[in-house]
Amino acid sequence: MWLKKDERIDQLYANDVKIIQSTNVFSFSLDAVLLANFPHIPKKGTIVDLCAGNGAVGLFIANKTKGNIYQIEIQEKLADMAQRSVQLNHLENQVEVLPMDLKDSLSKIPSDSCDLVLCNPPYFKNLPTNHKNPNPFYATARHEIYTDLDQVLYTSSKLLKMNGHFAMVHRPERFLEVVELMKKNRLAPKRVQFVYPKAEKEANILLVEGIKDGKTDGFKVLPPMFTYDASGNYTLETSRLLYGK
Amino acid sequence: MWLKKDERIDQLYANDVKIIQSTNVFSFSLDAVLLANFPHIPKKGTIVDLCAGNGAVGLFIANKTKGNIYQIEIQEKLADMAQRSVQLNHLENQVEVLPMDLKDSLSKIPSDSCDLVLCNPPYFKNLPTNHKNPNPFYATARHEIYTDLDQVLYTSSKLLKMNGHFAMVHRPERFLEVVELMKKNRLAPKRVQFVYPKAEKEANILLVEGIKDGKTDGFKVLPPMFTYDASGNYTLETSRLLYGK
Repeated sequence: MWLKKDERIDQLYANDVKIIQSTNVFSFSLDAVLLANFPHIPKKGTIVDLCAGNGAVGLFIANKTKGNIYQIEIQEKLADMAQRSVQLNHLENQVEVLPMDLKDSLSKIPSDSCDLVLCNPPYFKNLPTNHKNPNPFYATARHEIYTDLDQVLYTSSKLLKMNGHFAMVHRPERFLEVVELMKKNRLAPKRVQFVYPKAEKEANILLVEGIKDGKTDGFKVLPPMFTYDASGNYTLETSRLLYGK
Repeated sequence: MWLKKDERIDQLYANDVKIIQSTNVFSFSLDAVLLANFPHIPKKGTIVDLCAGNGAVGLFIANKTKGNIYQIEIQEKLADMAQRSVQLNHLENQVEVLPMDLKDSLSKIPSDSCDLVLCNPPYFKNLPTNHKNPNPFYATARHEIYTDLDQVLYTSSKLLKMNGHFAMVHRPERFLEVVELMKKNRLAPKRVQFVYPKAEKEANILLVEGIKDGKTDGFKVLPPMFTYDASGNYTLETSRLLYGK
């Protein structure tokens, strides 16, 4: 009833959430779990997840808020998976999936109305020289084919109230561009956290939070996170996020 | 013979360097040791240390290069300490102390001539609301009274050859300003490293390296460093930098 061919139901044990996944279409990654756990989640109000994929981030934060959550996803097949996961978790009254290009989201959600915008965007530029996944679902999720960083930040800023919060996961190699374009789009970077695959390795994940029209002082670099320990197992911190223990 | 009243000779064991210090005037901090160990030190050519204080950074890198090292320090009393430390370490043929405002350094060192510029600048803005140390030597070293970040970066960029390297230690809370002003002054940020006082604490030291007229891609966040372990002792890494073991 719930599942199409090639789909499966996975569980995020830490939040007791069930989520429809598909190896051929989309499965959420650790990045989505990190993003969902990064910002302070407002107890009420309006929360938007841009580039929602199969809806992982919105599902993971639902039990922390009574606010309304909108999930914006351009790929219909992924939005459909997200919609069925919403039903599977009985969250129809709280979470609404909007299958649309994020740049059109202002036609559904009023500008200057949101308390928090979250985004796990495509990480890679759409350059002719960039190798893309031959699977179009993965290529769209990973490369800036239908949107780009500036468009994501422009839309996020438009959606947010003054002093509303923006949180994004991205790659450290694009950090300079992230902060430059955040500032251009009235999102003052306030907190960043770098995630390192293990000790003595360069950071491979960037978490950044900003405030719309916020002051530019008070910038903080949060304690580092490590994904794996020296033995190659998840660290206690990662394990807690994934399994709740 | 070497020492004035209130001065002492300290040793950096890791480099076998002797340095004249004074509690009343200036003593180098861990920040200088971190900066000296951060960038690749060119084997030859011209190296400049701006805001040199009592000369710690130049002294610490001298045994890694056959290049000429200039130490620029505006405070005559500190420059005099640096000059005597140069003699104490028999480095008169390699290290030259220039007691001057860094903005005048281009009158002594040709523009576009340097391979590496290092700087441990004053960290705090010169705002009326900022509490300053009543000791004028410390106030000048810590607050942007006689120079500021933009002036430091402008001068560094002028001194450097195309593709010359710039390395600075600063505070993470000024990171956004650091990268913005580096880019303004043709210094492409390439590598940063955050130093955390201990696990689960926010970063309190920023190390950043840039290349004059470098490409803006390839930005890296190096593995994190921790100053102290859980027991409050120096970590092995810090201990190696200070004591060589």
